[in-house]
Amino acid sequence: MADSKITPRAEDYSQWYLDVLREAELAENSPVRGSMVIRPHGYAIWEGIQRGLDRRFKETGHQNAYFPMFIPMSFIAKEAEHVEGFSPELAVVTQGGGKKLEEPLVVRPTSETIIGHTFSKWIQSYRDLPLLINQWANVVRWEMRTRPFLRTMEFLWQEGHTAHATEEEAMEETLQMLHAYEDMAVNDAAIPVIPGEKSENERFAGALKTFTIEAMMGNAWALQSGTSHYLGQNFSKAFDIQYLDENNKQQYVYTTSWGVSTRFVGAIIMAHGDDQGLRLPPKVAPIQAVVVPIWRKEKERKEVEPVAQKVYEQLRAAGIRVKLDDRDHLTPGFKYNDWEMRGVPLRIEVGPRDVKKNCVVIAQRHLPGKAGKVFDISIDGLVGHVNEFFDKVHKGLYDQALAFREENTHEGIEDYDTFKQMAEDKGGFLKVHWAGSNEDEEQVKQDLKFTVRCFPQDAQDGPKGKCFYTGKETNRVAIFARAY
Amino acid sequence: MADSKITPRAEDYSQWYLDVLREAELAENSPVRGSMVIRPHGYAIWEGIQRGLDRRFKETGHQNAYFPMFIPMSFIAKEAEHVEGFSPELAVVTQGGGKKLEEPLVVRPTSETIIGHTFSKWIQSYRDLPLLINQWANVVRWEMRTRPFLRTMEFLWQEGHTAHATEEEAMEETLQMLHAYEDMAVNDAAIPVIPGEKSENERFAGALKTFTIEAMMGNAWALQSGTSHYLGQNFSKAFDIQYLDENNKQQYVYTTSWGVSTRFVGAIIMAHGDDQGLRLPPKVAPIQAVVVPIWRKEKERKEVEPVAQKVYEQLRAAGIRVKLDDRDHLTPGFKYNDWEMRGVPLRIEVGPRDVKKNCVVIAQRHLPGKAGKVFDISIDGLVGHVNEFFDKVHKGLYDQALAFREENTHEGIEDYDTFKQMAEDKGGFLKVHWAGSNEDEEQVKQDLKFTVRCFPQDAQDGPKGKCFYTGKETNRVAIFARAY
Repeated sequence: MADSKITPRAEDYSQWYLDVLREAELAENSPVRGSMVIRPHGYAIWEGIQRGLDRRFKETGHQNAYFPMFIPMSFIAKEAEHVEGFSPELAVVTQGGGKKLEEPLVVRPTSETIIGHTFSKWIQSYRDLPLLINQWANVVRWEMRTRPFLRTMEFLWQEGHTAHATEEEAMEETLQMLHAYEDMAVNDAAIPVIPGEKSENERFAGALKTFTIEAMMGNAWALQSGTSHYLGQNFSKAFDIQYLDENNKQQYVYTTSWGVSTRFVGAIIMAHGDDQGLRLPPKVAPIQAVVVPIWRKEKERKEVEPVAQKVYEQLRAAGIRVKLDDRDHLTPGFKYNDWEMRGVPLRIEVGPRDVKKNCVVIAQRHLPGKAGKVFDISIDGLVGHVNEFFDKVHKGLYDQALAFREENTHEGIEDYDTFKQMAEDKGGFLKVHWAGSNEDEEQVKQDLKFTVRCFPQDAQDGPKGKCFYTGKETNRVAIFARAY
Repeated sequence: MADSKITPRAEDYSQWYLDVLREAELAENSPVRGSMVIRPHGYAIWEGIQRGLDRRFKETGHQNAYFPMFIPMSFIAKEAEHVEGFSPELAVVTQGGGKKLEEPLVVRPTSETIIGHTFSKWIQSYRDLPLLINQWANVVRWEMRTRPFLRTMEFLWQEGHTAHATEEEAMEETLQMLHAYEDMAVNDAAIPVIPGEKSENERFAGALKTFTIEAMMGNAWALQSGTSHYLGQNFSKAFDIQYLDENNKQQYVYTTSWGVSTRFVGAIIMAHGDDQGLRLPPKVAPIQAVVVPIWRKEKERKEVEPVAQKVYEQLRAAGIRVKLDDRDHLTPGFKYNDWEMRGVPLRIEVGPRDVKKNCVVIAQRHLPGKAGKVFDISIDGLVGHVNEFFDKVHKGLYDQALAFREENTHEGIEDYDTFKQMAEDKGGFLKVHWAGSNEDEEQVKQDLKFTVRCFPQDAQDGPKGKCFYTGKETNRVAIFARAY
């Protein structure tokens, strides 16, 4: 019943995504075009992502702070590439307190400028470095084509901004945070990602190098899921961020910035979801386990309900995010579908026969139907069993996503005709040697909508091969794909 | 040395506040007039407040969600008092993506309207009630006179919004959240507060009743530190939030809203700070304890530093937010002043004589100089001792704040001349019987800048007394004070 509300992925993947957003109550469009309401179940997934990131930031010495959302228009103009990149996307406040403003204020699309301005006051000496700051905030980019979580006018994110004495330290930081993102994706969200550098065409406006983690979604498209930028001295020169070094000389700092946004909620939905709805990895799941009592007669109810309650309390006391579904106007079957759609990793069934054996049945969301059910799990020591099942679900989701990505990654393409045919017939990730120019890359995009997602970090030192577009020999390897 | 950078409170309280913000690195003005940068040490206090509130919200069944920051101008106009109250304070976006917008967008000053609009879609049946939502967000109010944390154009807050089937339930919720705020103030921030109802003049624009927690600052002024509003059916009628009741009849819901903002950071600074700087209660302190190794000669250093490190690790492993100050270019005396200024509740000194005794010295921030020092505390079981000291600091700060409030609360005022004299000579909280009209209240404000802070909940059922302004007998008791 519930699953019939969701369009099968194979039929229409975009509609499937919108159906899941609606039926799992994750997000909806708001009356302001391009912006969304994040509903509690969707927001709690974001809170799960935040927990994992914030912990990793603090463990690596970063501190949170908060900078104003309104930025003087003149700030945006100070870094040439930055203004060129962001100008078309700005929302502008021209009235405040009933009056026309003398200088219009930009609603931040990102905060390099206001933070650069502030860093120039905080940093005086080498003793003030490195300066490691993160901000949790909303930002606004005026987008034409939007889709909840994936691309919205307003979105939530964290943006890290750091300043360093040397180029080496700044590059180390850029890569450290890229790998913090990879670690969160793999170990919290169960999503395999490919860390790599972006091509010049796809760089952040104002960066010398942009790195990304790229994930494969359920339709074999790519999703850029987090980025980390090495900004060199572009912003320190634009905002005069200098320090006195140990030899009493003024030097410009080297800066980085890096961000993950609510887009990552979209990554989780699309990397794991199936035709029954959402499938959530336990670490970010708002509800990790649901307890469903099963009874028909009043006599059974009296046996079952106290045990279901006890099971619930036992798990809750252990810090597990558990829900007891004791709604009495709904059948167990309806509840199963309902919680499957919402992606709850484990369902714990308590029926009359289970109660007699002091046991429960556990159903794992990542394995459909009977394959996912395990019977006769003792209520004694249930917390330990449940935690083991969480590990299984996490690993199961990760392995499935990795297998899907491997099936849909194609190599050995040495000419453009083959590339075109693969792009059109198979899609997925095309892992190729690439020696083309920026213009060549743009041409492939025009022809096929395939873009360079990244140059994977672990594939740049291999043997040379033939570039499918230019025919040149190169050892630079790129992933091309359709992307959100 | 460090304390000389801070103007004594008695000399100029406003300057003292600004000095503490600067020297303890809490916040600073930003290039956009009226908005501030919250620096890491200030932001971490806000994180402490957030932790305590978010836990209390979730324990009482509320869920977080997120609603768009931009609100169509037409939404604000739907509730008559709301538009009247907020219109003068709005920031308006008139351009987006390089074009003039057809309908200007308001940057939310508060979210009753957009959330009311959304609730009307989420609520269909009595089964959807109560709906208990909270949002962590930034909001903008175009203020003329601003001061960091206390009143800024943009500020951070949480805003709770709930919908209920009956008036009784909505009133219960309004008071439940008022008392959640009181509980956070008392038990996390060590600030005694007076919960009570606001006068009609001071009500939230669109509310039927507004409740507040009022705290006394170090200059005996009041600070409204959190508010909870009973909105009746004002917003449900404006936004058509109806449900089908158990008898199949359409009914309007009753709504509430309630908020605490970054202003509360200002409350903590001003309720506890002294002439040496900040004093922080342990539950919200970013750094709860600092370990300072004390040595002169290299030989002592080799004895002391490993023990300081061990002490640090022991506390850290126990989940205490501890810092080891091993900067070797600064004297212990400088460090003492530095951490005192930043309000760290406990300083743990480790010197050569302590090491020999396997002991440390603990200095408590809330008791000045020698009075706060305790010697010969064994390193074995130090975590337990430190936790006991945290309780002592918390209680000490609370008791001092309460004693100060009691000293500065004056009763028994039965005529306006006495009131005037008390207001001018003594200040503080004037606790009086009050039977005046809205206009009378306004007149007192014009004369003396004293306003009704609240009608304290625990003082409304006492014996009648004479209203100092009208001479009428009444049992309504009000607190008048100067307020931020």
